[in-house]
Amino acid sequence: MKYNQFAATIPSAKDQILELQKIRIYPTDLAQYPFAELVDHVFRQFFPEFRSPTTQNEHLANILVAPDKSLATALSEAANQVDQLHFYNAALQLLGFFAGEDFDLRAPLTTMMALNLPIVAEKQLDFTQFTLAVYQLMNTRSKNGLTFLDNLASRGYYQFNLNAAEREKPVIFNGKVQATYDFNNVIREIVYVESDLDTDNDGQRDLLAATIIRPKLSQDFLKVPVLYTANPYFLGTTDTAMNPVDLPLTKKPIGNARKDGVAFDQFVSFKTERPTAEQLADPFSQNESTVQATTVSSVVLNDFFLARGFASVYAAGIGSRGSDGIGTCGSPEETDSVTAIIEWLHGDRRAYTDHSRQQEIKATWCNGRVAMTGKSYLGTLAIAAAATGVAGLETVISEAAISSWYDYYREHGLVVAPETFQGEDADVLTNECFSRQKDAGSYAQVHDFYQKKLAQMKQAQDRVTGSYNHFWDVRNYRNDLDQVNCPIVSVHGLNDWNVKPKNVYKLNQALHQLGKTHKVILHQGQHIYINNFPSLDFYDLINLWLTNKLLGINNHAEEIFPDYLIQSNVDQYNWTTPATWPNGHEQTQALTDKFATTTNQTSFTDNGTAAFKQSGLGDLAWEQAFINQDSRFTNNQIVLKTAVLKQAQLLSGRPVVHLRLKNNADYGLVSAMLVDYGISHRLTTRPQTVAFEARQFGKQAPLETTLEFAINPITTPAKLICKGHLNLQNPHHNYQNEAWSANEFQDIDLKLQPTYFHLAPGHQLGLIIYATDMSMTLRGQNELQYTVDLANSSLSLYQK
Amino acid sequence: MKYNQFAATIPSAKDQILELQKIRIYPTDLAQYPFAELVDHVFRQFFPEFRSPTTQNEHLANILVAPDKSLATALSEAANQVDQLHFYNAALQLLGFFAGEDFDLRAPLTTMMALNLPIVAEKQLDFTQFTLAVYQLMNTRSKNGLTFLDNLASRGYYQFNLNAAEREKPVIFNGKVQATYDFNNVIREIVYVESDLDTDNDGQRDLLAATIIRPKLSQDFLKVPVLYTANPYFLGTTDTAMNPVDLPLTKKPIGNARKDGVAFDQFVSFKTERPTAEQLADPFSQNESTVQATTVSSVVLNDFFLARGFASVYAAGIGSRGSDGIGTCGSPEETDSVTAIIEWLHGDRRAYTDHSRQQEIKATWCNGRVAMTGKSYLGTLAIAAAATGVAGLETVISEAAISSWYDYYREHGLVVAPETFQGEDADVLTNECFSRQKDAGSYAQVHDFYQKKLAQMKQAQDRVTGSYNHFWDVRNYRNDLDQVNCPIVSVHGLNDWNVKPKNVYKLNQALHQLGKTHKVILHQGQHIYINNFPSLDFYDLINLWLTNKLLGINNHAEEIFPDYLIQSNVDQYNWTTPATWPNGHEQTQALTDKFATTTNQTSFTDNGTAAFKQSGLGDLAWEQAFINQDSRFTNNQIVLKTAVLKQAQLLSGRPVVHLRLKNNADYGLVSAMLVDYGISHRLTTRPQTVAFEARQFGKQAPLETTLEFAINPITTPAKLICKGHLNLQNPHHNYQNEAWSANEFQDIDLKLQPTYFHLAPGHQLGLIIYATDMSMTLRGQNELQYTVDLANSSLSLYQK
Repeated sequence: MKYNQFAATIPSAKDQILELQKIRIYPTDLAQYPFAELVDHVFRQFFPEFRSPTTQNEHLANILVAPDKSLATALSEAANQVDQLHFYNAALQLLGFFAGEDFDLRAPLTTMMALNLPIVAEKQLDFTQFTLAVYQLMNTRSKNGLTFLDNLASRGYYQFNLNAAEREKPVIFNGKVQATYDFNNVIREIVYVESDLDTDNDGQRDLLAATIIRPKLSQDFLKVPVLYTANPYFLGTTDTAMNPVDLPLTKKPIGNARKDGVAFDQFVSFKTERPTAEQLADPFSQNESTVQATTVSSVVLNDFFLARGFASVYAAGIGSRGSDGIGTCGSPEETDSVTAIIEWLHGDRRAYTDHSRQQEIKATWCNGRVAMTGKSYLGTLAIAAAATGVAGLETVISEAAISSWYDYYREHGLVVAPETFQGEDADVLTNECFSRQKDAGSYAQVHDFYQKKLAQMKQAQDRVTGSYNHFWDVRNYRNDLDQVNCPIVSVHGLNDWNVKPKNVYKLNQALHQLGKTHKVILHQGQHIYINNFPSLDFYDLINLWLTNKLLGINNHAEEIFPDYLIQSNVDQYNWTTPATWPNGHEQTQALTDKFATTTNQTSFTDNGTAAFKQSGLGDLAWEQAFINQDSRFTNNQIVLKTAVLKQAQLLSGRPVVHLRLKNNADYGLVSAMLVDYGISHRLTTRPQTVAFEARQFGKQAPLETTLEFAINPITTPAKLICKGHLNLQNPHHNYQNEAWSANEFQDIDLKLQPTYFHLAPGHQLGLIIYATDMSMTLRGQNELQYTVDLANSSLSLYQK
Repeated sequence: MKYNQFAATIPSAKDQILELQKIRIYPTDLAQYPFAELVDHVFRQFFPEFRSPTTQNEHLANILVAPDKSLATALSEAANQVDQLHFYNAALQLLGFFAGEDFDLRAPLTTMMALNLPIVAEKQLDFTQFTLAVYQLMNTRSKNGLTFLDNLASRGYYQFNLNAAEREKPVIFNGKVQATYDFNNVIREIVYVESDLDTDNDGQRDLLAATIIRPKLSQDFLKVPVLYTANPYFLGTTDTAMNPVDLPLTKKPIGNARKDGVAFDQFVSFKTERPTAEQLADPFSQNESTVQATTVSSVVLNDFFLARGFASVYAAGIGSRGSDGIGTCGSPEETDSVTAIIEWLHGDRRAYTDHSRQQEIKATWCNGRVAMTGKSYLGTLAIAAAATGVAGLETVISEAAISSWYDYYREHGLVVAPETFQGEDADVLTNECFSRQKDAGSYAQVHDFYQKKLAQMKQAQDRVTGSYNHFWDVRNYRNDLDQVNCPIVSVHGLNDWNVKPKNVYKLNQALHQLGKTHKVILHQGQHIYINNFPSLDFYDLINLWLTNKLLGINNHAEEIFPDYLIQSNVDQYNWTTPATWPNGHEQTQALTDKFATTTNQTSFTDNGTAAFKQSGLGDLAWEQAFINQDSRFTNNQIVLKTAVLKQAQLLSGRPVVHLRLKNNADYGLVSAMLVDYGISHRLTTRPQTVAFEARQFGKQAPLETTLEFAINPITTPAKLICKGHLNLQNPHHNYQNEAWSANEFQDIDLKLQPTYFHLAPGHQLGLIIYATDMSMTLRGQNELQYTVDLANSSLSLYQK
């Protein structure tokens, strides 16, 4: 294990003392304390659950500062200095490491350094060095990955050491807000925000249910920021059948598809004037809801901040239980339903206590500053909201988010599914999230209109051509990035084949071009949250960020938070901070020069569906077999490999495969994979449990199990780096359907998904050229013959 | 899904009304309510989170009582009767089922009956029938498996409808205590109970840390019962190396081993007089601890009752962090350390606020009634405590418990491991649970003495002969069952090859012989808890039981709780209540008559270890391959099968294999498996998630994910029913080592583990005879030849 730490800073010696005093690790009357007494005081503060000197003595005696000396004994030997080894032996035990099992009492520094924990170098610590060591210890990550101070908070430190008045305001230490609030002392309520929409065509503005969890203190005087998650799954999902995928590709009509398929997006919308500030100042409004929310939690990151005094708000949007409207998946109307909640929190919109719209309710408890959070569809809606520039949205922590729905359900003129969800499309996801269906009375009111619109959506999304049309164009948040006026943090898995990495990559490119702040964390996971990794101080980074953005504390978060923070695919504990992505220089390698085919084959037949069906393999197993050149599928691929690499190589950005190829029809598709070949122990696909329920987010808060990628004890022969797919009729633009001539060599450029991949020495870089991708494209039997002119084909890559 | 319900009763019509009034579903001034108003009142009570009539109206409108009529409309049409279909359509929606998805509004009764939910048969419900229907609805299990009333409680029903004084006393409905307490309004503290022991030989009585979680109200006046879990893992475990298992069997000296191996059990113990009642009435004692516990929860069943006003107490016992002593795994000293906590809770023993023993602390908040809970080692210590007859222990809910440690680590004169823990033994488990090692100072005090005792234990447990000696005899709780004076509930998996079913079976036989109450629940799991199965009203049963045992409510729990409650292995939703176990008649079948060998083989060689090692298979995979007659292992087995069964057959109890066999040495072992052969969709090995975080144990209480066995979508060719192992030198007694003659046919009886198994028609019953069991016995290469005289061998079975 290596505890990477990006969010800690070291203030001046004077500020160290002031901050330690503020949280009472140092006494406020410090001047009265001889050094030895101060040291004794400090160590006693580390046992907040032991409320008497006798019980503290026991625990000081349980800690050894040397093989033959306890901390209790060391403290009794008043001195003007603290032995460095004594200090770090004690520190390691306080941090949850066990003598013998985790470290050797004779060499604590070896372990501190191996774990990447900070140390003060002097052999004897005087007041100044002791102060620094204690200050750092507060920030040092414990065995469970949270800082020592965060763990002290969960053990009741602040309740015991700060008075009630002190705990009513946010307490900041090292630029990060502290868990001084009781996780359970909260109000849980639901309000109904009135939008400008009428998506269910009932003649009334849609009301949108918002679930609020906020500190009880906010009812009286405390104004708190909000972590808001727009979560269409929040109130349940319905079982919905997938679209058929066993359909062959067909020739599409030539022309520009951009304006096609507008039918669905004709909603009746109220677009009346916003109420004036005067109207919003309704003297009869109240701030207490009449509906109690029974939800316990939803997004773990929000929970983390609940004990730190931030409210959590969840809304499932139009078409969900308790709300009006119908689902529209990715539409501007959906985005409006997302931002409506922020507008209410910011004081710019009305909400009511119930659907009768008789009693207004105001978010007087909110400080008007909102951050959005969430993964996948949830994180997507955070991007959608950011792209409106809505006032009150101060930042976005968006994980595994879609930045254009075309890049989720389509690719380069083809229907391309998120991995393991073959047949899913906007219509399926709409219906899955249309939780109004679960309230029979509510559904009955909207059934006919909804079914009509859903049928229109099925047409508009166009699973026949796969081209970029009006339906997808209005679902491309990147069209509106010029409106973004809050900094965005994106987290994405380099192995996410559900929401593919292109979504974050293109967002990043576009935001940078517009000069907007965009921090990017790339990890080695698939479609996952990463808050539970001990190897990264993710909570601290986000805490630093939100303390800055939502509490307005000047803690230099923008400078401290790395622009890119990337986990290595060869060492899960190695997180680096490159200045750019891509990284290195673009190089173009001719396929006949740097690569060799494994079978001397330059042609393949796109007829693998029958063998796939017969194999009984699932999508993922097929992909692995295909990569491993399983004999059932070798007829459907050209596999090229480089020579065995003599030294490590970093590939980054979007590889482009330049192909001169022909087939025997006037339509077709081409796919390519980059593969890391070489038998070795790679990282596990999914993070593995490090410690079950190892840590807590604050007093009485939920427990979190820690996870981390591990080195797979089993060797694997190969690993997918990235892939891409292209309709041969869309060589230049997703929306521009061009002619393709049968039996004629033509040049196409196939951009693959972006990557950041370390190829190890001894491995080979592989390139697989094929057509139908059983796990992603439509997979009807196409039965076409493809030939590639390898001598006139090449691969462009950013390398280092 | 089928919701089996064993803990619900129907009281008299008058009592139905009184109970409904007590919990305010019916108004206290019932006489003032015309019928239609009563009906309206009742349905509004079902929305405790909606605090205004307007919001309630919305939700009444969301429920349809017929395809074209909402509950709101139906309630507005005042009538003297309620339509039965209207009632159950509303009921299903209130219970969390969705119209369309889960049931048809035109036929709600079909679904009610299919799900096994209770209904009132009349087409129109008058006051009496409506009352019964509402009373039953309160008890009816919701989609998430908890009763409607329990779910209402989690939604804040009691906080809203009962006043504070009413919520201070236990509220009983249908014989079960209700979740009227706030889960988080608790005191968490640690006290140190003084035992009579000095297991670490330091000249002082061992102090034992007990962690207490109890309602805050108990600090003032409320006296509460305790669910106590003795959990040696509670404060962490240490990594401990397993014992070697690749050792061949050897000949053991002839004789009685019962008195062997006493060395370890020579502890220095204080066995002074107990303090007198007068001494215990120390005027200076207090009831407030100075140590705050930071533990959130441990045993889910205890959590369930925390919101119902029962305290939870956890203790890890001698040798754990914060306690004195050293670990002794299964010893009488360990049992004493378990019962000491009960004695303190019952007022019969001293505890202190810390190790200085200066300040006594009393459990004045406890009503003196304790039940023990827990699974595996935890449940084992509950049995250990019950077998002492300690005062204050009113009952035991013991899951997957060991009743004799010999039956955990040994079998019939052999070292036999719990499955997947090859090499584990009493010494390994002792060291794993010796969490004092984690406190360096504490460990330093006891290191030398502990290591000496551990070395003695390694000898005393005797992994060479595997015979039943003094060490195991004092670790056999069944020796002391005559002292049991509380009723015991046991839960055990029929597929538990960790703590094997023999443990519960023999306990049951012995308790019945002594005329003691023993309720047994047998499920189709391995070593698991079953509280999260919606198909069984486990919480309700335990609630009924504990309301009777710990609150003293006369609710007929002993009669209502079935003696045996057994889950079927062919239908996971089918729980039956046979009167006996075994069930049916014992029949003996000659192996040459009812069975046929699959390979005409009557001999085998015990030399499979090399093939096992070479195969790279894990223990479980080997077992499956062995059963499936994998060609690598067929030389090591004789496989017999019956003809294909024409009709279903129930096997129960302990099958006995009578074998006439010989081998070519003066020692040896024999093993046998009963196997269900037949390609079919069996139950999954592990329960599968039904709904993630589907239910809550009370207001603000933790969420529980529901699980259930599913029918495996993949067919399997065979399944282990049960197995057994025997040292040929122990044909009669575990402790009596006899002579075995080489090359001479001798008769032995091999008792297998008990079972309760439905063999389906079309399947075959299989019997495998073999020697070394790679997954359980020592597995050194024995290289012996075995021959079985099948004509003179047979199988005895209880069948039906």
